[in-house]
Amino acid sequence: MLYAVIMAGGSGTRLWPLSRRGQPKQALKLIGERTMFQHSVDRLAPLFPPERILVVTSAAMADLLRPQTPGLPAANFISEPEGRDSAPAAGLAAINLLQHDPDAIMVMLTADHYILDTEQFRSALSAAAQVAAAGTIVTLGIRPTYPATGFGYVSFGEAWVIENGFRVYRSAGFTEKPDLATAVRFLEGGRHVWNSGMFVWRASRLMDEFARQLPDIHAALEQIGQALDTPQAGDVLRREWSNVRRISLDYGIMEHADNVAVIPVEVGWSDIGSWASLIEVLPADESGNAVTGEFVAVDSHNCLVRSEGKLVAAIGVDDLVIVDTPDALLVCRRDRAQDVKEVVNRLTAQGKPVYL
Amino acid sequence: MLYAVIMAGGSGTRLWPLSRRGQPKQALKLIGERTMFQHSVDRLAPLFPPERILVVTSAAMADLLRPQTPGLPAANFISEPEGRDSAPAAGLAAINLLQHDPDAIMVMLTADHYILDTEQFRSALSAAAQVAAAGTIVTLGIRPTYPATGFGYVSFGEAWVIENGFRVYRSAGFTEKPDLATAVRFLEGGRHVWNSGMFVWRASRLMDEFARQLPDIHAALEQIGQALDTPQAGDVLRREWSNVRRISLDYGIMEHADNVAVIPVEVGWSDIGSWASLIEVLPADESGNAVTGEFVAVDSHNCLVRSEGKLVAAIGVDDLVIVDTPDALLVCRRDRAQDVKEVVNRLTAQGKPVYL
Repeated sequence: MLYAVIMAGGSGTRLWPLSRRGQPKQALKLIGERTMFQHSVDRLAPLFPPERILVVTSAAMADLLRPQTPGLPAANFISEPEGRDSAPAAGLAAINLLQHDPDAIMVMLTADHYILDTEQFRSALSAAAQVAAAGTIVTLGIRPTYPATGFGYVSFGEAWVIENGFRVYRSAGFTEKPDLATAVRFLEGGRHVWNSGMFVWRASRLMDEFARQLPDIHAALEQIGQALDTPQAGDVLRREWSNVRRISLDYGIMEHADNVAVIPVEVGWSDIGSWASLIEVLPADESGNAVTGEFVAVDSHNCLVRSEGKLVAAIGVDDLVIVDTPDALLVCRRDRAQDVKEVVNRLTAQGKPVYL
Repeated sequence: MLYAVIMAGGSGTRLWPLSRRGQPKQALKLIGERTMFQHSVDRLAPLFPPERILVVTSAAMADLLRPQTPGLPAANFISEPEGRDSAPAAGLAAINLLQHDPDAIMVMLTADHYILDTEQFRSALSAAAQVAAAGTIVTLGIRPTYPATGFGYVSFGEAWVIENGFRVYRSAGFTEKPDLATAVRFLEGGRHVWNSGMFVWRASRLMDEFARQLPDIHAALEQIGQALDTPQAGDVLRREWSNVRRISLDYGIMEHADNVAVIPVEVGWSDIGSWASLIEVLPADESGNAVTGEFVAVDSHNCLVRSEGKLVAAIGVDDLVIVDTPDALLVCRRDRAQDVKEVVNRLTAQGKPVYL
């Protein structure tokens, strides 16, 4: 059977002051009236019944997210005792699936990315599931639209097969975030896609990779798996997890995995990694302003404006991000949106956690 | 005796969203911890005992301002039943003074202007009072620092006398707000000063000008004066005031007054007519930012930032006005501060008086 596993444990303040340590991106209504997590579940609906959608996250985050998706069984939220990055989280999902379905094929997704063309996205997942059923690890790659230095890349050679209308390539390797010159070369060459973090594999196939590449984590996962559905499950999870090291899927598994394929997709994907990238996916008015809340614009263009119950007036300003929250206000040039982290750093250094 | 009369009836939204119809500029703490009205009273203290400082305003404004100056006798707040512009307000103050002091010399001041060099200001008032004692109407003129088109001007010829170290000139005429070319000529010629709205005269001398130039208003003021200290005072004031027309001192009295002198002063005067002019008089940090509230600046310069209990973060922005209030936020390019009125116009047109 095919299952979706949504990794929802991320935290971050790249969308400060809206995103906070306790209120990360996936919990926010950034686009329309649904949170990023809700969008992530919504777009799976036609392909996955709710009982086959799992969420891996922390206990605190599960409490925050569970009420957002009343249709998902509460038991489908798998809580990590502590965050250990993406590889252990994927392994934890895999052993849970294998407990009841040795043939489980799992689609690994993130809770805080945006996809505009959800129909094309589901078609790509179906194609990937077909390929993964035969034992291949499949990654969905995003056709780059600019020379991004903030993403990893996957390179590929000649087309291997065509599945469900999608060209499937054998992966020629994973590359970590490149410098700008390399990114330009990747973009121009046409043989690289962004690593979206969306993978499809048999759960048993992932466990084999753990056994080969990360045997210590594999052993811990085995212990956890054997205790599942017993009264000791929670104790064993906490005990084993405390010794599991932090490691990412890309670094721990994908860079040296056997038999990996890549399906380049054009689905209007965005990681919403900053206010600037959020502007790109939001509808704008005739002046190019993307507005949430009451707004009066005098000669102001291409701004992102968010407020909660407050009137915002802008006069003679272009390309600004204006985000108002009850305790903090951000006014930021659009092309400096990545420097929100500098504000967060200063607030941390100044000992002002109330704003973080 | 010398009296100060502060005209405090003005309303306006040029400092929106901080200034509102019910919360005009004089009631706001724009500079330091004192309101503009408090500054106006404070700077008089060494020259005027509290009992000789009068305030002319509306009943509603008196209720707002009286608690700000507990040292002033409550009876010194003279309430106009309705605003009738500056000439009737000055006449109302004059008849109140003449009731108890036929020799009263009155200094007419405004409640919402700022003066940096208060010592020089008081010296100029003393000089003006000396000149006014002999029957001359004296206006304090502000040496222009740029070709302003938003102020009236007073022209003058050769120096007439020197009083208390100040050159006193005979006025050669009042000019209403000029166009830019004229303002440039005024600035370069050196024979024009801004009409600050600060006048010094004998109260009886002002009444003579009313009798000659505005006999209808003079008659009303006489009626009001005769009823002062009687049980009918309030009724007579309301009755007469309802027929008094709106007219400014400049237009109704000064343009055709006899025997007018002007004392040019350099006292760091500002009418704080917009957020841009407020920036000029506020102390700035090393990045040129004038800040009220908690502020984190990343590569941001020459901004005016005001918030009430909210953290403001700015990234990569220069020359912005950022003013946050509980229900409205303004983000405005500094050189577009005069267009705040456009926002106010739109809010009025949209039927949103809650923000005005």
